[in-house]
Amino acid sequence: MLDQSIIEQLEALVGKENVLTGKVDLVAYSYDATADLPRQTPDVVVLPTSTEKVQEIVRLARRNNIAIYPRGAGTNLSGGTVPLKKGIVLSFQKMNQILDIDAANLTAVVQPGVVINALNTAVAEHGLIYPPDPGTVATATMGGSAAENSGGLRGLKYGVTKNYIMGMEVVLANGAKVRFGGKTVKNVTAYDFSNLFVGSEGTLGIITELTAKLIPAPKYRRTMMGVFKTLTDAGNAVAGIIAAQVIPATLEIMDRMTIKTVEDFANIGLPTDAEALLLIEVDGMSEDVVTTEADSVMRVVTENNGDLKAAESDQERDSLWTARRNALPALASLNNTVILEDATVPRSRITDMLIICQEIGKKYDLTLGTFGHAGDGNLHPTILCDKNNEEEMGRMHKAVDEIFKAALDFGGTLSGEHGIGVAKMKYLGDELGQSGVDLMALLKESLDPDFLLNPGKMVPVRGN
Amino acid sequence: MLDQSIIEQLEALVGKENVLTGKVDLVAYSYDATADLPRQTPDVVVLPTSTEKVQEIVRLARRNNIAIYPRGAGTNLSGGTVPLKKGIVLSFQKMNQILDIDAANLTAVVQPGVVINALNTAVAEHGLIYPPDPGTVATATMGGSAAENSGGLRGLKYGVTKNYIMGMEVVLANGAKVRFGGKTVKNVTAYDFSNLFVGSEGTLGIITELTAKLIPAPKYRRTMMGVFKTLTDAGNAVAGIIAAQVIPATLEIMDRMTIKTVEDFANIGLPTDAEALLLIEVDGMSEDVVTTEADSVMRVVTENNGDLKAAESDQERDSLWTARRNALPALASLNNTVILEDATVPRSRITDMLIICQEIGKKYDLTLGTFGHAGDGNLHPTILCDKNNEEEMGRMHKAVDEIFKAALDFGGTLSGEHGIGVAKMKYLGDELGQSGVDLMALLKESLDPDFLLNPGKMVPVRGN
Repeated sequence: MLDQSIIEQLEALVGKENVLTGKVDLVAYSYDATADLPRQTPDVVVLPTSTEKVQEIVRLARRNNIAIYPRGAGTNLSGGTVPLKKGIVLSFQKMNQILDIDAANLTAVVQPGVVINALNTAVAEHGLIYPPDPGTVATATMGGSAAENSGGLRGLKYGVTKNYIMGMEVVLANGAKVRFGGKTVKNVTAYDFSNLFVGSEGTLGIITELTAKLIPAPKYRRTMMGVFKTLTDAGNAVAGIIAAQVIPATLEIMDRMTIKTVEDFANIGLPTDAEALLLIEVDGMSEDVVTTEADSVMRVVTENNGDLKAAESDQERDSLWTARRNALPALASLNNTVILEDATVPRSRITDMLIICQEIGKKYDLTLGTFGHAGDGNLHPTILCDKNNEEEMGRMHKAVDEIFKAALDFGGTLSGEHGIGVAKMKYLGDELGQSGVDLMALLKESLDPDFLLNPGKMVPVRGN
Repeated sequence: MLDQSIIEQLEALVGKENVLTGKVDLVAYSYDATADLPRQTPDVVVLPTSTEKVQEIVRLARRNNIAIYPRGAGTNLSGGTVPLKKGIVLSFQKMNQILDIDAANLTAVVQPGVVINALNTAVAEHGLIYPPDPGTVATATMGGSAAENSGGLRGLKYGVTKNYIMGMEVVLANGAKVRFGGKTVKNVTAYDFSNLFVGSEGTLGIITELTAKLIPAPKYRRTMMGVFKTLTDAGNAVAGIIAAQVIPATLEIMDRMTIKTVEDFANIGLPTDAEALLLIEVDGMSEDVVTTEADSVMRVVTENNGDLKAAESDQERDSLWTARRNALPALASLNNTVILEDATVPRSRITDMLIICQEIGKKYDLTLGTFGHAGDGNLHPTILCDKNNEEEMGRMHKAVDEIFKAALDFGGTLSGEHGIGVAKMKYLGDELGQSGVDLMALLKESLDPDFLLNPGKMVPVRGN
């Protein structure tokens, strides 16, 4: 419990209306989108309105040794935003201004609380887009997605969040404000702090402003679905599309379990007897190129024994993407606990990984479906279980262990886009080795020696 | 002077043939491509043949408090590789193997001593390229260009080195080996160490292996030259090309002084009465798109009062690029000291920056020409002077100060691609502020507390 005087100091800093202490609020801010995690209600939720306020809050927290949990929209999937001990949740919902859109330099400057879709809406009138597109673009914030280095459906062609953050303002654990990077396309002044703070999950500093890179919006697109009788055929089609030197904007896969669940949920006419389907969209600035690429994709799908369906209208396109967008909600509707992982492998091992996920699901008698971003090897093996069934949860944990082991054996990684948070910390050594884990701790402890910033995420708190 | 026993221990570690102590060798390794710098001959040059040897050398150096200067081909332009005190130059010329080319995953794994062009030659048979292309691709190494985060002519469309390094092996100052990243397109496991070590100029760790991203080689290209009577017209043409949503592979500018010097040097028929010329190349996978983009470029050049010349053959293309490639050697031929800077501004401020560079040259009565990568705002104001003329060197230093001040005033940066090294350390605070400089020092001191790794670069040695 925080001393009442701390609450009063916070109220004096940011105003009473920006300090929440009601029980309902505190419980609401104890969650994010991750299942099956330890968590704790915070003492207080503070809504800063400026960088200077953030600095003052950090200094106050430091003086009183209070943990700070920075928070965007809380959509993350690795426990990156849940409080693990009492402290301050720092919510950026009131720092949500787009400060600058510079069409000549293809940049935007935003506060961390700006919702990704709001930025895209604002830049659309300039014919521009901000490409990173986690599934949660309608609610996730620029600050949160930068802290998590979010990926999304367009990662294969357009890259992920870190490829679009050109500069930043950050408040450090000592209360100092640093600014680096900016509107220049090239910048090698200083260490690459932007990329250090992107993906650091709020453990090294608090992002208070972002300079984002924009690109011209693609003018044409073609959307297709390939339906396959075997996972191997689907995997070969993925490899074949890349080998044909087509880089689709999106190249998504769903396995049988996911297809069936989505169809039961949404009734959109998916082929429930298929082993796998691919959803593919090519886009670009030239109708001719997009047509040529679509033709290549269709040829590869057919050559790999796939049944092809091309969207002939925007409506048909939307219905195909509805299938993909419904994958998670459909799976979630089946059971009370959805374990959504993001084990990621080199593109050439996708088929192997899909098959092994199915085998692991069978071995542990679990409801396990896999979908995800086949084009970049970023898969989402998803396990449905009941958190009240301890025995089943035990099997789930064993299955997850095996899934990560398989991903690493294939030369993959623990996390393609969800981050480490609390959920995957125990596996870090398996990928990084002890020397890598030590390097994580060295960085954390040099920038945040008192473990004030999002403690317990990515790096274990010293002594715990 | 190193104790002879240290030399003997090094010889025992890597073999006599890989330990150089001759005076000629030591002098050769006291230089890099940067003019007008302090430097020092090292005690010894060591050529490791494996990561394990690097680890043992680092441990030996640490036990004996000896500085280590990691070195690729020594082509850098900010003093990043010159020894500043006695110690070991660690040259990677014998760790020059391409370990893996994986066309399915679009990756290559290389040792740091691999020359950039050698990698490009090796991947060409798979129809692939490694896009980063500093002017020195024929000699610069993968390790050196990663340590410097090299840019180059294709940065606008294809990005710079950091965008192509997916994973790394690094030996830290404590002798530990860490590996991170790899062949997966997405990876958010751990802090983004790859991007931390890329561009850290050998001050945080020693790169011993790299996983590089490859892309399909563009199939078509069109090369054009625009000749302009004013810098403003040329600058407007650059802005117009981007506004037309064309992203050229290269978009280079040369001012009058550079044009004249290149023409005197190479006699290739450049218009010496022009105020500026643009060299523009568009490329892509589709002839149609490339033609459409070339048409847009030609329209924009003409609309901005430029005279247009399109290369009609490979020979004509080569002759246009010869002009650009000759810019530096031509300027260098004129005088004994060439100060080549890389002040970089947001694209929209290129004209302003070109004009101010000319004005600064006039103000200080210096021979100053500017050329560079107009498309990404990365300019190379280049001053010719005589290092024996102390008074002129004084004017040069004042001019350089003003050039950097102007770049920062325009929202730019001290270095677009050459790095900080020793040359620009004194300006760091002007861009980063004291809190940013402190953050640099904090990182350096946490990873290399004894200042063993390339001491005196990027971050001042504590106590100096």
